[in-house]
Amino acid sequence: MASLTQRLVAEWLGTAFLLAAVVGSGIMAQRLADGNVALALLCNTIPTGAILVVLILIFGPLSGGHFNPAVTLAFAWRAKLPWATAALYIIAQIAGGIAGVWAAHLMFELPLWQSSLTVRTGTGQWFAEGVATFGLLLTIFGCVARAPSAVPYAVGLYITSAYWFTASTSFANPAVTIARSLSNTFAGIAPSSVPAFISAQLLGAALAVVLSGWLWEHKPKPA
Amino acid sequence: MASLTQRLVAEWLGTAFLLAAVVGSGIMAQRLADGNVALALLCNTIPTGAILVVLILIFGPLSGGHFNPAVTLAFAWRAKLPWATAALYIIAQIAGGIAGVWAAHLMFELPLWQSSLTVRTGTGQWFAEGVATFGLLLTIFGCVARAPSAVPYAVGLYITSAYWFTASTSFANPAVTIARSLSNTFAGIAPSSVPAFISAQLLGAALAVVLSGWLWEHKPKPA
Amino acid sequence: MASLTQRLVAEWLGTAFLLAAVVGSGIMAQRLADGNVALALLCNTIPTGAILVVLILIFGPLSGGHFNPAVTLAFAWRAKLPWATAALYIIAQIAGGIAGVWAAHLMFELPLWQSSLTVRTGTGQWFAEGVATFGLLLTIFGCVARAPSAVPYAVGLYITSAYWFTASTSFANPAVTIARSLSNTFAGIAPSSVPAFISAQLLGAALAVVLSGWLWEHKPKPA
Amino acid sequence: MASLTQRLVAEWLGTAFLLAAVVGSGIMAQRLADGNVALALLCNTIPTGAILVVLILIFGPLSGGHFNPAVTLAFAWRAKLPWATAALYIIAQIAGGIAGVWAAHLMFELPLWQSSLTVRTGTGQWFAEGVATFGLLLTIFGCVARAPSAVPYAVGLYITSAYWFTASTSFANPAVTIARSLSNTFAGIAPSSVPAFISAQLLGAALAVVLSGWLWEHKPKPA
Repeated sequence: MASLTQRLVAEWLGTAFLLAAVVGSGIMAQRLADGNVALALLCNTIPTGAILVVLILIFGPLSGGHFNPAVTLAFAWRAKLPWATAALYIIAQIAGGIAGVWAAHLMFELPLWQSSLTVRTGTGQWFAEGVATFGLLLTIFGCVARAPSAVPYAVGLYITSAYWFTASTSFANPAVTIARSLSNTFAGIAPSSVPAFISAQLLGAALAVVLSGWLWEHKPKPA
Repeated sequence: MASLTQRLVAEWLGTAFLLAAVVGSGIMAQRLADGNVALALLCNTIPTGAILVVLILIFGPLSGGHFNPAVTLAFAWRAKLPWATAALYIIAQIAGGIAGVWAAHLMFELPLWQSSLTVRTGTGQWFAEGVATFGLLLTIFGCVARAPSAVPYAVGLYITSAYWFTASTSFANPAVTIARSLSNTFAGIAPSSVPAFISAQLLGAALAVVLSGWLWEHKPKPA
Repeated sequence: MASLTQRLVAEWLGTAFLLAAVVGSGIMAQRLADGNVALALLCNTIPTGAILVVLILIFGPLSGGHFNPAVTLAFAWRAKLPWATAALYIIAQIAGGIAGVWAAHLMFELPLWQSSLTVRTGTGQWFAEGVATFGLLLTIFGCVARAPSAVPYAVGLYITSAYWFTASTSFANPAVTIARSLSNTFAGIAPSSVPAFISAQLLGAALAVVLSGWLWEHKPKPA
Repeated sequence: MASLTQRLVAEWLGTAFLLAAVVGSGIMAQRLADGNVALALLCNTIPTGAILVVLILIFGPLSGGHFNPAVTLAFAWRAKLPWATAALYIIAQIAGGIAGVWAAHLMFELPLWQSSLTVRTGTGQWFAEGVATFGLLLTIFGCVARAPSAVPYAVGLYITSAYWFTASTSFANPAVTIARSLSNTFAGIAPSSVPAFISAQLLGAALAVVLSGWLWEHKPKPA
């Protein structure tokens, strides 16, 4: 069992690498894609899905590998994590996400402090964030219940898919959403668009907690 | 063992996510691909293959993770599923597929009700649908017989491949075919093209049931 | 243990699906790629790698999942397969490969009988075929020795890589080479280029048999 | 247990195949990509990630599958490998890397001896190499500690991601860096840029050794 400090460092560092990958690959992809947005998004998607598998493989055994306040709150709600620990996890995730964005900016020699101008709004995008987070949480709870060693691969593949089938490219993570508001690059989101995204994510997560509790943990009474 | 209700919800929800992924990623890919159809199809293929792995991982332990009337009928034929349950599965799959298409339309702020104008017809495409479904069923029965934990990955990879090597982009699924007739987007199929596609799929599935019974289950007599 | 007939059908059908995937995805990719050959080759690579994983997963437990005379000869040489059985395997593979090419032509409504005009020749390409087959056989023998359940994934990933790093796009398989000479499409090879390709493949395979016997099976004497 | 000779051949041959894949797929990708650098880099990334999985799967059980002096030094530092053996490993890796570059040049009929003119320099790139190698070593140590059978997949996926999220396309390997200085093709690096890259890599690796020792191996005292 890892200590609380080890677990918080795992959440901080994992979220930092996740954001460095999302924002860094977005910058690289957009620079090289010659204006073809589908190609840029593909070259943003594959690195994101791939790093998620890696991060959950290595940090999962320490902290659970959440990197996502929606996931942490869901586990706390289901009493798998004390609420106080959940609060510390979330702080570590948000701080890690911001550090990851800054690392990406440093690597690509861009100004550290930025604020995104990319407005992402509208009922379609909000519904998409709800669906994206609902699906992500189902993926996690479904795998945890029946195939826990598949969690890293399932999450990586889910996000790879959700980048494309949700109109919002699937942020599905409040810490990621906050951090991406601090990058005026391919992956950015305007700060004004953040609250609605996070609300939709938390709503989707809550629905998934309720449904997955019934789907994978409710045992029908023997006759 | 999951209850029948849990299993039907799993089939409904899994097919809904499958169709949201197929149709949603098709819309996103076409919007962004700047007219390059190969790039659009690649960005439609990868999310479809990836979500299939996830959905079979999480819903497989509940309902088998069919999401496909051809698969359900094949299991019923081989006496792994009562015919009455199979009928309920198929209803759940078709209803789920339609719900998934609507979810995609909602996310991309398109009219909910649509009817595809994309005619897909001709002996080449019908033969392709037969081959696609034949191969899909062989994949499932072959894995179930010898490497059941590989089913999710095998199905995802098979469809990733079949999108490209079959002239029809491999629908290989009557519920998917019906649902995609209700979307006039990249992944759509005109309603008039549906019956021949489904007939070819069922023929391919039937051949696979016969062949796979002999290939993986027939034990040669000891000498 | 599968009967000889079951094993030969597995080799025939597996090689047929492999060639349908290679040739079919090549046709689809070239038709849609708008003249961008890198994109076309990528859309030919991914389906080929993916179907190889599937085919070895499902037919491997029956016949070994060779689909490749170079592999079959190597196993016969190492006394894992009687020479007479190897001969039958090779006939099944060549017949299956041709059937797969025809299936692709039928699906894309092209003339069944074709002969490729794509000359592939020169010391670079021959060396590349040697390297490609050498690496393929090392992959197989290395996995068989230490991680047999990884063979399907390793072979699929190896070919995915070798499509790009060998100047010949890695045929690495005499049955595949013969079959592809019968398709004047993206994946074709002129019949006149076939003998040198096959010679290079067999030479690379032979080197791999010798080296892998020493690498993975030679036990150093205890001191 | 493999003999030292077998282990050194494994390191030599593995690094040779790695470099053949990196440089060869770079040449192929650039030739075919019609000037689209994102597409070329994607077609360089996928073969590199894929071959890494294969090489670690087959050579890992013999030598550990390092192919990377930074990895070898890290294991020596952590007393998993005698320093004298580490020195031999590194010689084998550098020699193998050069052989792999030459094999790529031979396959593509380019002059054997080349020197890259591609200057890669600046604080962003150096920081990126530090981050890239830091992350690679964390990936390896994290998996070795908790999920050793996942190492091949984790390393392949990590590099697939790091190609895109680091401004330097993630060399993360001194032997790879030296070898790529000998190829004036897509993957090349000017010899003058090599020392700073290697310094950054070793710094990143050292930080990872310290951190991963605490993260995965430090056991909190029981209360």
